[in-house]
Amino acid sequence: MKLAIDAMGGDNGVSVTVPAAISVLKNNSRIKQILLVGNERLINPLLDDARCSASDIRSRIRVIPAAETVEMTDNPIDVLRQRSDTSMFAALKAVADGQADVCISGGNTGALVGLARHLYGFQTGVRRMAICAQLPTLKKNSYLLDVGANVDCSGELLHQFARMGCALSEALDGNKDCRVKALSIGTEAGKGNAAVNKAVALCEADKNINYDGLVEGGKLLAGESDVIFCDGFVGNIALKSCEGTAQYIRQLASNIFPRSDTDENSDTDENSEMDENVAQLLTEIDPARYNGACLLGLGRLVIKSHGGSQQADFMAAIEKGVRAIDGQLLDKMAATLNR
Amino acid sequence: MKLAIDAMGGDNGVSVTVPAAISVLKNNSRIKQILLVGNERLINPLLDDARCSASDIRSRIRVIPAAETVEMTDNPIDVLRQRSDTSMFAALKAVADGQADVCISGGNTGALVGLARHLYGFQTGVRRMAICAQLPTLKKNSYLLDVGANVDCSGELLHQFARMGCALSEALDGNKDCRVKALSIGTEAGKGNAAVNKAVALCEADKNINYDGLVEGGKLLAGESDVIFCDGFVGNIALKSCEGTAQYIRQLASNIFPRSDTDENSDTDENSEMDENVAQLLTEIDPARYNGACLLGLGRLVIKSHGGSQQADFMAAIEKGVRAIDGQLLDKMAATLNR
Repeated sequence: MKLAIDAMGGDNGVSVTVPAAISVLKNNSRIKQILLVGNERLINPLLDDARCSASDIRSRIRVIPAAETVEMTDNPIDVLRQRSDTSMFAALKAVADGQADVCISGGNTGALVGLARHLYGFQTGVRRMAICAQLPTLKKNSYLLDVGANVDCSGELLHQFARMGCALSEALDGNKDCRVKALSIGTEAGKGNAAVNKAVALCEADKNINYDGLVEGGKLLAGESDVIFCDGFVGNIALKSCEGTAQYIRQLASNIFPRSDTDENSDTDENSEMDENVAQLLTEIDPARYNGACLLGLGRLVIKSHGGSQQADFMAAIEKGVRAIDGQLLDKMAATLNR
Repeated sequence: MKLAIDAMGGDNGVSVTVPAAISVLKNNSRIKQILLVGNERLINPLLDDARCSASDIRSRIRVIPAAETVEMTDNPIDVLRQRSDTSMFAALKAVADGQADVCISGGNTGALVGLARHLYGFQTGVRRMAICAQLPTLKKNSYLLDVGANVDCSGELLHQFARMGCALSEALDGNKDCRVKALSIGTEAGKGNAAVNKAVALCEADKNINYDGLVEGGKLLAGESDVIFCDGFVGNIALKSCEGTAQYIRQLASNIFPRSDTDENSDTDENSEMDENVAQLLTEIDPARYNGACLLGLGRLVIKSHGGSQQADFMAAIEKGVRAIDGQLLDKMAATLNR
């Protein structure tokens, strides 16, 4: 398999994307090639990494030059109209041209969605694309869609999101009996808004969906369902509310727990243990561990990484792309949509 | 001032509400009387509390008998139609009859909203009532509304919520220059759904509102605004997403940190300090500390406590009722709505 990476995307650009790509290549010999798309003068020096020269890794990397970068603050409409010389466009184009199987980018979401839709089009039967995020649950993998591609959705569209989410769960986790819930404000039947209530009726009548009722925001992370659907306005706010709360608690924890590395006198065994526990907690509650949202409904595979990703997080996004290829996501989507 | 408490409301009933009422009376000599409404046979034994008999507190408590309890699982429509002998109804009625200034209940939200609307009606100019929750921010007090009274809202209604939130911020915090934001999926202008974009236009044209732009879900707890408005579907899901995440992290922290009280050998000073830090963190991230949502737009004051509240949380809800009276919330609302 071959992957195309928008090396300039995200807040940290090549300093995150290039080392992440090298690490993933090192871990996974089944990846034949990674295309690193972006500014050669910034990418090449990072390929002098010891890990590259001492192995076959360098030969599995191809740098594709692209002069421009889509900035996080660029207006997606301007990007779509005027800018075909960007790393984001070129990385997506490499997949359109069959040079790679998936595109991974941490760049401007609106621009990525617009360009991908323009270059790839929808799969047959798709009304609108959706962005599907993985939730950091205590139990099994759980996916939430849409998290931002569509602000106002009909019940019919939400019903299609339910189907698309099932295809993703099957592709990534081999889950053939996907439990689907609708995000709402109560668990009793009828506790949705107009669109949700309509979608629930459609899901209940759909023999290909294992519809499992409504779920409230407080149970998003409970891992009680494989797929949770909602419109992109609600999903985006719910996901970011979870992430923001985790971030807030990380900050609180950092304030409360003394760091022994700044306090030499207290470097006892007990404090080391405390630090380890705090570090473990901070890691566990870092939403970036589940990084890599799938753009669903398009003719090609695209993974959106968090803009603020660090190396390990971007690796998670790349690996999600690998799983999407392995799980034949596009075929699963086509089969699900045409049932 | 006098308060009416639905003593049977909430998951824990009198075992929480009665001790909380006694503690609040003890802390606040300005409360002339608390009406405890509910089952006398359950309430009276709890008034034999040493704190009651050894002081004047018992004389400031009046028990109002009510035979029935609205269960958390009762259908609000059934409650509204058939049940006037419940503690919730009687507590609300006591306020309607002028026997108390505010009603506090931890019972079934739908029933409380329905009964309160039925008994009190709307203040002049109010289109629909809203439930307004306090957010647990790192900085100043911040309020979110609506968090569940209205699932589908027009832009005009959202604009009114913005005004109502300002009245609350002024009443509870003395804030005369309230900064208002709209909850949305981006911070650039136009990044709302249809209703939010309409509301933003109305807020921008409203000289009585200090409209301060859009805010994303990830910044709900940042404490950057005094009031954040949204429809009740989005607000309920956002608030519960925050609470659910905090709950999830509390659970993770409990798993990660060893409890020294179950491990006698490790009861060193360092472990005690660790336990204190963990306890502090768990307390700080407990959303119940900010307990007590205000029902806004009605002719009387009502505070909704979390159903699962413990004593300290229910005390916070009672004290919010005290602040609403002190801050003349109903007058502030009337002035704001008729500006």
